[in-house]
Amino acid sequence: MTSTDLLDPLGVDGAADKITGDEAWLQALVAAEVALSRALVAADLAPEWMLGVAAALNDTSFLDLPALASAGRSGGNPVIPLVKSLQARAEGLHAGAGEYVHVGATSQDIVDTAAMLVSARTLEAVREHLLALGGGLAALAETHRHTPQAGRTLGQHASPTSFGFVVAGWLDAVSTLIERVTDARAGLAASLAGAVGTLSVLSQVAAERRPEHPSVDTVVSTYARELGLAAPRISWHSDRLPIVEVGSVLAAATGVAGSIGAAVAELSRTEIGELGEGLAEGQGGSSAMPHKRNPVGSVLIVAAARQTPGLLSTLYGSLLVEDQRAIGGWHAEWQTLRALQRHAISSVAAADALIGGLHVDAPRMRANLDLTHGLLYSERVSALLAERIGRARAFELVRQASAAVSASAPLSEVLDQQLAAEGFAHDDSVRAAVRGAFDPDSFVDQTSPAIDRVLARFAKVAATSPVKETLS
Amino acid sequence: MTSTDLLDPLGVDGAADKITGDEAWLQALVAAEVALSRALVAADLAPEWMLGVAAALNDTSFLDLPALASAGRSGGNPVIPLVKSLQARAEGLHAGAGEYVHVGATSQDIVDTAAMLVSARTLEAVREHLLALGGGLAALAETHRHTPQAGRTLGQHASPTSFGFVVAGWLDAVSTLIERVTDARAGLAASLAGAVGTLSVLSQVAAERRPEHPSVDTVVSTYARELGLAAPRISWHSDRLPIVEVGSVLAAATGVAGSIGAAVAELSRTEIGELGEGLAEGQGGSSAMPHKRNPVGSVLIVAAARQTPGLLSTLYGSLLVEDQRAIGGWHAEWQTLRALQRHAISSVAAADALIGGLHVDAPRMRANLDLTHGLLYSERVSALLAERIGRARAFELVRQASAAVSASAPLSEVLDQQLAAEGFAHDDSVRAAVRGAFDPDSFVDQTSPAIDRVLARFAKVAATSPVKETLS
Amino acid sequence: MTSTDLLDPLGVDGAADKITGDEAWLQALVAAEVALSRALVAADLAPEWMLGVAAALNDTSFLDLPALASAGRSGGNPVIPLVKSLQARAEGLHAGAGEYVHVGATSQDIVDTAAMLVSARTLEAVREHLLALGGGLAALAETHRHTPQAGRTLGQHASPTSFGFVVAGWLDAVSTLIERVTDARAGLAASLAGAVGTLSVLSQVAAERRPEHPSVDTVVSTYARELGLAAPRISWHSDRLPIVEVGSVLAAATGVAGSIGAAVAELSRTEIGELGEGLAEGQGGSSAMPHKRNPVGSVLIVAAARQTPGLLSTLYGSLLVEDQRAIGGWHAEWQTLRALQRHAISSVAAADALIGGLHVDAPRMRANLDLTHGLLYSERVSALLAERIGRARAFELVRQASAAVSASAPLSEVLDQQLAAEGFAHDDSVRAAVRGAFDPDSFVDQTSPAIDRVLARFAKVAATSPVKETLS
Amino acid sequence: MTSTDLLDPLGVDGAADKITGDEAWLQALVAAEVALSRALVAADLAPEWMLGVAAALNDTSFLDLPALASAGRSGGNPVIPLVKSLQARAEGLHAGAGEYVHVGATSQDIVDTAAMLVSARTLEAVREHLLALGGGLAALAETHRHTPQAGRTLGQHASPTSFGFVVAGWLDAVSTLIERVTDARAGLAASLAGAVGTLSVLSQVAAERRPEHPSVDTVVSTYARELGLAAPRISWHSDRLPIVEVGSVLAAATGVAGSIGAAVAELSRTEIGELGEGLAEGQGGSSAMPHKRNPVGSVLIVAAARQTPGLLSTLYGSLLVEDQRAIGGWHAEWQTLRALQRHAISSVAAADALIGGLHVDAPRMRANLDLTHGLLYSERVSALLAERIGRARAFELVRQASAAVSASAPLSEVLDQQLAAEGFAHDDSVRAAVRGAFDPDSFVDQTSPAIDRVLARFAKVAATSPVKETLS
Repeated sequence: MTSTDLLDPLGVDGAADKITGDEAWLQALVAAEVALSRALVAADLAPEWMLGVAAALNDTSFLDLPALASAGRSGGNPVIPLVKSLQARAEGLHAGAGEYVHVGATSQDIVDTAAMLVSARTLEAVREHLLALGGGLAALAETHRHTPQAGRTLGQHASPTSFGFVVAGWLDAVSTLIERVTDARAGLAASLAGAVGTLSVLSQVAAERRPEHPSVDTVVSTYARELGLAAPRISWHSDRLPIVEVGSVLAAATGVAGSIGAAVAELSRTEIGELGEGLAEGQGGSSAMPHKRNPVGSVLIVAAARQTPGLLSTLYGSLLVEDQRAIGGWHAEWQTLRALQRHAISSVAAADALIGGLHVDAPRMRANLDLTHGLLYSERVSALLAERIGRARAFELVRQASAAVSASAPLSEVLDQQLAAEGFAHDDSVRAAVRGAFDPDSFVDQTSPAIDRVLARFAKVAATSPVKETLS
Repeated sequence: MTSTDLLDPLGVDGAADKITGDEAWLQALVAAEVALSRALVAADLAPEWMLGVAAALNDTSFLDLPALASAGRSGGNPVIPLVKSLQARAEGLHAGAGEYVHVGATSQDIVDTAAMLVSARTLEAVREHLLALGGGLAALAETHRHTPQAGRTLGQHASPTSFGFVVAGWLDAVSTLIERVTDARAGLAASLAGAVGTLSVLSQVAAERRPEHPSVDTVVSTYARELGLAAPRISWHSDRLPIVEVGSVLAAATGVAGSIGAAVAELSRTEIGELGEGLAEGQGGSSAMPHKRNPVGSVLIVAAARQTPGLLSTLYGSLLVEDQRAIGGWHAEWQTLRALQRHAISSVAAADALIGGLHVDAPRMRANLDLTHGLLYSERVSALLAERIGRARAFELVRQASAAVSASAPLSEVLDQQLAAEGFAHDDSVRAAVRGAFDPDSFVDQTSPAIDRVLARFAKVAATSPVKETLS
Repeated sequence: MTSTDLLDPLGVDGAADKITGDEAWLQALVAAEVALSRALVAADLAPEWMLGVAAALNDTSFLDLPALASAGRSGGNPVIPLVKSLQARAEGLHAGAGEYVHVGATSQDIVDTAAMLVSARTLEAVREHLLALGGGLAALAETHRHTPQAGRTLGQHASPTSFGFVVAGWLDAVSTLIERVTDARAGLAASLAGAVGTLSVLSQVAAERRPEHPSVDTVVSTYARELGLAAPRISWHSDRLPIVEVGSVLAAATGVAGSIGAAVAELSRTEIGELGEGLAEGQGGSSAMPHKRNPVGSVLIVAAARQTPGLLSTLYGSLLVEDQRAIGGWHAEWQTLRALQRHAISSVAAADALIGGLHVDAPRMRANLDLTHGLLYSERVSALLAERIGRARAFELVRQASAAVSASAPLSEVLDQQLAAEGFAHDDSVRAAVRGAFDPDSFVDQTSPAIDRVLARFAKVAATSPVKETLS
Repeated sequence: MTSTDLLDPLGVDGAADKITGDEAWLQALVAAEVALSRALVAADLAPEWMLGVAAALNDTSFLDLPALASAGRSGGNPVIPLVKSLQARAEGLHAGAGEYVHVGATSQDIVDTAAMLVSARTLEAVREHLLALGGGLAALAETHRHTPQAGRTLGQHASPTSFGFVVAGWLDAVSTLIERVTDARAGLAASLAGAVGTLSVLSQVAAERRPEHPSVDTVVSTYARELGLAAPRISWHSDRLPIVEVGSVLAAATGVAGSIGAAVAELSRTEIGELGEGLAEGQGGSSAMPHKRNPVGSVLIVAAARQTPGLLSTLYGSLLVEDQRAIGGWHAEWQTLRALQRHAISSVAAADALIGGLHVDAPRMRANLDLTHGLLYSERVSALLAERIGRARAFELVRQASAAVSASAPLSEVLDQQLAAEGFAHDDSVRAAVRGAFDPDSFVDQTSPAIDRVLARFAKVAATSPVKETLS
């Protein structure tokens, strides 16, 4: 039995494992078979007593996971041995019950449906974590709506912003993700199509067992509904869009979480010090440096986001299917999809925890605004001057002044002197305007409308009733 | 001036270049600036005469593309030199007009907006090609609704299907793509946010020029509407979901086109021979082999689909933004996005041409059904027997019979003899049923309902009014 | 404890797990610490009795893997809790022994060294499997040196080749891989550099404990030698070339195995039927189709090869290190590298098994040569005619003849008639040459020199003494 | 004609275009054909006068690149129309000369050989840039051997290092790359194998034209030698290791350049300010902020390194070849390889320029060391104390002291008081040692041996005679 915990410190807590581990996949494979048996009953293609057998099969404790995994080698997937075990168990519960297991299905139906079930649970968990994360971000944006912070582009101080505005930017991405995750969850379809996708055997069985009223559609729709999935229009054995769509939204969620992690790690740099993880006792320590308080949560979230793009590319590669079932492309999806599921759950949950415990050093943010001795205001001052003396002259004036700035000669003073030299009197409105421009709070006010829009959107997104969970 | 045509035989025809080439990107950059100037007028922040200047700027013939590209090196993007050229040109047209160019914008606003404009044109073109491709597939599915074909899984004959059903599978993926492309197009948002995303300068300019009624929102909404894009809630300088969403749908389109190409190439194999490209005189030739008729269209479509997953992974990697503008992540998007745009346009158009000229050899499909001497019917026969003698016994009987099949002893005969040996009389209903099962046409009928569903969906998707093109 | 076996039918047999599983990584982490303690003794920086303690620590049965994995969350990697366990255990064995554990090392030293140790075992295993695979291919190339086969380009019959030649092509790639794997193994370096790579603490300890003769170099070189790794010139904490180089060779090995798998699966197609996997009883079966004999080994090998490129891209992304230890890039390597290790071991071993059991249907190969009624010989005939009547005329003649070929009119006859029509007499040397050209055996002979070169190279590569394994 | 300059500010200067642009590829395609004609003469399979014709063909000015690119669509690559043009031109120069063009070759031979020729020029250029970069780094490492700098891990100050040591780390990676690039260049092989790789036509032509002494080997070896490439043992049409090996080294070079770029950008952050790009007048400016001095060189280098991993994954995906020529995999290599070539040339050259103009602010480095009020020395102090009072007690003492540090209470004082409280007298050697430990210069000395080793290695690598360029 292979363990993979040691190298996955973000996923080690078990939450992702509970939803996406082998046990969960096995349960999902069984759920698909059980739903099929129940759907046969609903369509009058199996006797009522099969419902009791199906219920018993759903308790997977009788299955030997390692043995199934091992036996899966010879057929290329675990469904063949699983079906044998289920049929034997069914026969043990009720003679003849094996006839109502896996009827009309092929291995890919069961694996693909299980993939969608595990994805459903994953998307629901990611949605919950995103909602929690969004809640945390919304509170943070509100709290720091008036906290000025240096806006940075390409690593350089650029112009003032507010920390609440920065957080609102993250929140809007999270709102978008919640919509995407919700849509993706709602779109998940079951697979039930038979060997080459034509539902041939099921059609035949239906025609034989209920010649007066064949009922393939009832089977397919009941099967899907039982599982909380959509019914497919046609086989998607060789149409892998459903897989890349799930993978895309999972990678996007991990990426947005990663972006928050990257920003927190960056703003936690020793030299910047504006943010800090709320590290518990012992967290963030080093094996060599007693003083170290590493932003370990951020770092691991970033690490997850660095792994997902390559994984996603594998799924997109699997779109290339040449026949009714791909040579290898299909099999390449499973571990890849699971890795994406794990990263999404772990990293969004960790981002929620990160934001929940975030330490914001507002005084440090305020202090950092002065690091460039006023250069941070050059865009504002330049625009303000442009209104009065023309853009070209203003830009050049400020550019030259910027080059002369130092700790003892802040931009405000250099510019003031420059304007004096250009003939503007001390009480001239131009000089007055420039002197008054070096005020971070005025920038902060400008960010409020956008923050409000983002908060309102999140409130609306969060208020939307969540996806119903139909698999207990 | 760099040319890239020689290594891009799929994109060489110029269609993708017209939409995504440097000229198109330059036009889009200028369109963004022009829309901004027009929006200033609309918001009463620039004089009416600026509309005439803006109209003149929109004719990019005065710009020197190579010089701009070259000058873009020093600022890291072409906007800085472009703005200088536009301002100079504006001043030449009307003194003072330079004051109303690029007001409140930053380079990233213009590049991101241009990226969305080029993406809009790309998605519209891809949508048109998908509709045409869908139309071709719909016709093909209808035509070959009753054409039996061997269904193949993992390269092996599995069970009969119809070629119309196979095509319907492609069509349903195309319908999904049309929905995705339409949604993605509708969701494209402009960018106008200023240096650190706060619209600081624009707010200030609005407050100064129209203190009684500042009108930033009017500027942003007019700007976006002029460009046929959505207005952003908040800056997306550091939220790159808009980019990965466009990239994802382009990669998906290329992947689905690639899947069709892969299937055509595979079914065109010398040994299979069921499909053939409608090669024009001279197409598909070889430099060494006079007889060669290579499936060159399919091959190039597959080649495009093999390049997109890696490109898409780069875009997902750019989600990791640590500040208000990423160090390198943003710049890594441009060439990558363009390559995805090109591949999507070229490959979907080529898939449309491929399907339009496809040669379907129905007799060969029919003949191939017999290659396994009846093994193709084993699933059907097995299910049919299972209804009569139980699944386990049926599966084992057919498995053993399958192993004894040869050209001179087809499965129908082997099974018939086996059933006789098991005591079934010649006129027994079991033997009669088995004998009647080896009929491909009965499979074909089963595929009709799904084909109908898929055709109906495509008709509905195609009937939806197309996206309005607002950029002339 | 997370299991991942169910979705990994190729790796489920445990071979890859034994080398790369959590237990193996834990053992490697401990091995690094033990080697460091031993190196301290060698450099006279720890007492002789520490050797006994180190030997005891090397038996990892006292460690609680799940607890360590779980505890690794708070520091971001498992080394901090591991060091605590080792120090406690050491103290339990000999008072004061804890002082000689992890001296001068940082977590990254231990994880990176463990990564190299696991990579060493992986490369050694891959090398063994490659040698076995190469042996199988060499035998196959020899056996089928004179077995003609249709050469196929872009899916179309092109010109005759021999199956032995095709196999020799695979063998040459395997020989290249063996060289690469051997080089990569030899180049693996240990890591021992301390917090920021400067060996600061170790230098200080050495200066204090042996002021007369500080001995950092002895520690580093002994540490590396103990582990069977190279000693580093300088810290590679922020130089990740060692990681991408291992990853590259593992991905290349998986890709070449995948190429063999893809070819076998393709040539096993029902319509081609030239190759078949030597499937054991029950292997390659289907849950729905009793007759199915799926090329499951090939398929799973291909699936592995489809997963590795995306994984490798993650490692290359980790080259971007901004400081003395990367924010997330380092942590993204672990699971990715392990996945690459697993795929390489599993897929090369499976390719060896595949070749070992391969069923070659030489008569079918021979029969397939005739499928195009002589078109397969068009290149040859064209070249032969070109020598006699000029290239342009020859190419055109054969092209036209090719278009007229049918089952009842093979190319040989069509051409002969065409030449007659062009005035060549029946006994003309041109017509005679053409008539004699349709002989596959003559092509086969041409392939022998290359086969010989390839076999000789493999023999030489295989004869090179294998890497010494120094970790017992 | 497609231009791609606007979105490629790093590659726009033309250096990469000159080596890898369409013109260069066309020249390489022609060079392959010319070499083949010359090789035929050398093997006595073509008349001496063909040397003159070949020389004339080598001047590609008679070729119409756009027309060839366009004509390449129908065959899937530009070789078929190119061969026609070359043959026509040859016939125009000397009647019958067309018979000695492209003899025995197939399109893939010519394209693959051209890919290797362009790769040869690329690797040679990259090698030159790496040598220059290495020279700059060596000088920088020497200059700043004694410049203390804060070592940072996970964004946090960790322990002192020297800037020279950091640079030496980059230099060692560059030295490794030079070796890899040199090896990769030396290993580049020509391709000459004919339609299915068997050299069938060439063998036949040789046998016919020189029956007494067939000379295929002479042709192949002369062809390769003429081109400055290695002669292949066997066809590599379906063995794509040569492509992934070139791609890997190019991606590694771009990644290492990117790592330097990332470090420079990071250390140029406003808050860190230790490095600055030597920006020329106008470089690094902003369209909105007059004061901005963006690290635009670093940023663009990082952008290149973010694009290469995904591109490389496409090449690894092309290892999966199912026949004698891949359906799409081969065609997917061309644009991908060229993009990798461009990124490598541009980014290594830019890294060289970056290092050449780098502004190092040593006083700022020195000042930053004090930002943590001594915490930077915690590892050192802890280790020093451990030698005297045991590791556990020392680590805990320093951990507690670290938590109490502030601007007014540096670690040195807090610890001194703590030691006093623990009973150590003022003149105790323990307290004295601790007091003396807060000295960055002592760390700097420790880094010298590694710097020396790295410098020596680079000197050796640089002294190795460069690859001979054989293509003029």
